[in-house]
Amino acid sequence: MGVVVAIDEGKQPKASVKPLVNLTSADMARVNQLILSKTGSDVEMIPEVANHLIDSGGKRLRPMLTLSAAQLCGYTGDHHITLAASVEFMHTATLLHDDVVDESDMRRGKQAARMVWGNQASVLVGDFLLGQAFRMMVDAGSMEALDVLSTASMIIAEGEVMQLAAAQSMETTEDDYLAVIRGKTAALFSAASEVGPILAGSDKPVRDAFRSYGMNLGLAFQLVDDALDYGGSKADLGKNVGDDFHEGKITMPVLLAYRRGSDGEREFWRTAMESDAADADALAEAMTLLTKHTAIADTVARARHYGEIARDALAPLPPSEHKNALLDVVDFCVSRVS
Amino acid sequence: MGVVVAIDEGKQPKASVKPLVNLTSADMARVNQLILSKTGSDVEMIPEVANHLIDSGGKRLRPMLTLSAAQLCGYTGDHHITLAASVEFMHTATLLHDDVVDESDMRRGKQAARMVWGNQASVLVGDFLLGQAFRMMVDAGSMEALDVLSTASMIIAEGEVMQLAAAQSMETTEDDYLAVIRGKTAALFSAASEVGPILAGSDKPVRDAFRSYGMNLGLAFQLVDDALDYGGSKADLGKNVGDDFHEGKITMPVLLAYRRGSDGEREFWRTAMESDAADADALAEAMTLLTKHTAIADTVARARHYGEIARDALAPLPPSEHKNALLDVVDFCVSRVS
Repeated sequence: MGVVVAIDEGKQPKASVKPLVNLTSADMARVNQLILSKTGSDVEMIPEVANHLIDSGGKRLRPMLTLSAAQLCGYTGDHHITLAASVEFMHTATLLHDDVVDESDMRRGKQAARMVWGNQASVLVGDFLLGQAFRMMVDAGSMEALDVLSTASMIIAEGEVMQLAAAQSMETTEDDYLAVIRGKTAALFSAASEVGPILAGSDKPVRDAFRSYGMNLGLAFQLVDDALDYGGSKADLGKNVGDDFHEGKITMPVLLAYRRGSDGEREFWRTAMESDAADADALAEAMTLLTKHTAIADTVARARHYGEIARDALAPLPPSEHKNALLDVVDFCVSRVS
Repeated sequence: MGVVVAIDEGKQPKASVKPLVNLTSADMARVNQLILSKTGSDVEMIPEVANHLIDSGGKRLRPMLTLSAAQLCGYTGDHHITLAASVEFMHTATLLHDDVVDESDMRRGKQAARMVWGNQASVLVGDFLLGQAFRMMVDAGSMEALDVLSTASMIIAEGEVMQLAAAQSMETTEDDYLAVIRGKTAALFSAASEVGPILAGSDKPVRDAFRSYGMNLGLAFQLVDDALDYGGSKADLGKNVGDDFHEGKITMPVLLAYRRGSDGEREFWRTAMESDAADADALAEAMTLLTKHTAIADTVARARHYGEIARDALAPLPPSEHKNALLDVVDFCVSRVS
């Protein structure tokens, strides 16, 4: 569930998140200020743990979606700042809990909070941030936005439980897997995007467009992340290559290679994914099979499919800088592996 | 943090929760129905884990407080049902996470969920229930109630982190400890009580009265629970005698005995609480010291103090069956150890 926007300045990708970053930079400065102030607590451990993760260089794509969507829809108030910070808090809470659930050692290129302060602190500080996120949503004063975000919070957990139940079982189908990532990743992208037009009081078709944009962008994003887990360098990724493999986490590339493989290959995957003993040799063998079945490239092709849906979701909107920036984000997400 | 209302039918305590149970029974049937329907999910593990705990015979004191407070204040709508169920979901989510944090084996006389489904499921199903709780608050449609409950959710986590930071340090003062239980236990009692008058649109003094009632009842409740941990039988408690001791959790009885003890005794407490090696002999020694310094009886005396504040908080309200029932709850909480 380690979703990191890896930007490699040297590679000159075709598309970039820079237009989005530029258009939202003034608002993001306010969001970052609010985030800092809202992790404050008399209980020292709370800002320590929270800021360890918050300061670790996540690109804050989700709050930027909220800001851009609100601006595109002509919103002129201040509540998009509050909701954007809420969205980032929800995301941070999820990451803290995920690292406990996945027993991850690293996150965004540094030690996971649970390795420094323990699982207990990660669970509880995650709970604190989730509570704070809801308080901030109340501050924003929109019952509709609260509805969308609280529903997302439930669906995220549902997706994670689904993944837990499916974990280490090779019987996971592609549809099962899509249901998992729809929950654990795409639901928050979707909610983050939809609350923009909600604040602006936009019509239902516009809300629906942003919900669909976010959902499909999230799916594309997660699939690319899955591909990167087998294809990126450690520096790009902020975590180790093959982490998903070593955790026995069944993602799209593995799922495709398994379904397309021979009986012997399927036996290899079952042994490797269902045991805790997968080593470097096993990873090398896995990479060979993934390449043989073009499983990584085809995972990216699946991602491109959802990216197209995201683009078309916004198609009816009139041209604008924000629209272009949001479309660029889709291209960027897909292009970071190609 | 295992807060269980232990009712021993044989003992005939002076006061009882029965009047409260009777007055809220029709509404509680609806709350229980709603709870059942809202743990539903296509992801099987969610209702399994949630219902394991929800069906385990907790007395649902917190939702009864919401119902009774709403009725006392003349509320005639349906949203008190929704909020009461939300409150119980918040509580259940907290218990699931607490068992992970405390590494507890038992809860309400049966295996903790984490022993059956693992820590991962307990963390994630807790998150699901918290998300569902917020969705239900949105359904109830009161922004003020959302404010009170989301603030409580943050303060609960803050109290738990405070306890984690203070855990196994004998330097915890009584004031520190009160700050912990104000968060981890009393904040939810307080919020559960206050949302009743909020729904009813009651005046600020009435809201304030219920908030204060809940807060002080919660403090009394937790202190009695602390005393019971060293004084109750396993059947009364739904967990093992001395659990707090074995977990190195510093509670009021220990805190009092430590401060009142000799240098040698303090050395004993430090060794026992700061190590993981406390055994049955150590517990026996601890019991001797607690008795010597009347630490359990004085913990109950402290509880009685907060109980009195809770009673006086409601004093200005006109006489009613609900008022009497709520006052009985205070007496019941304190009397269950005497």
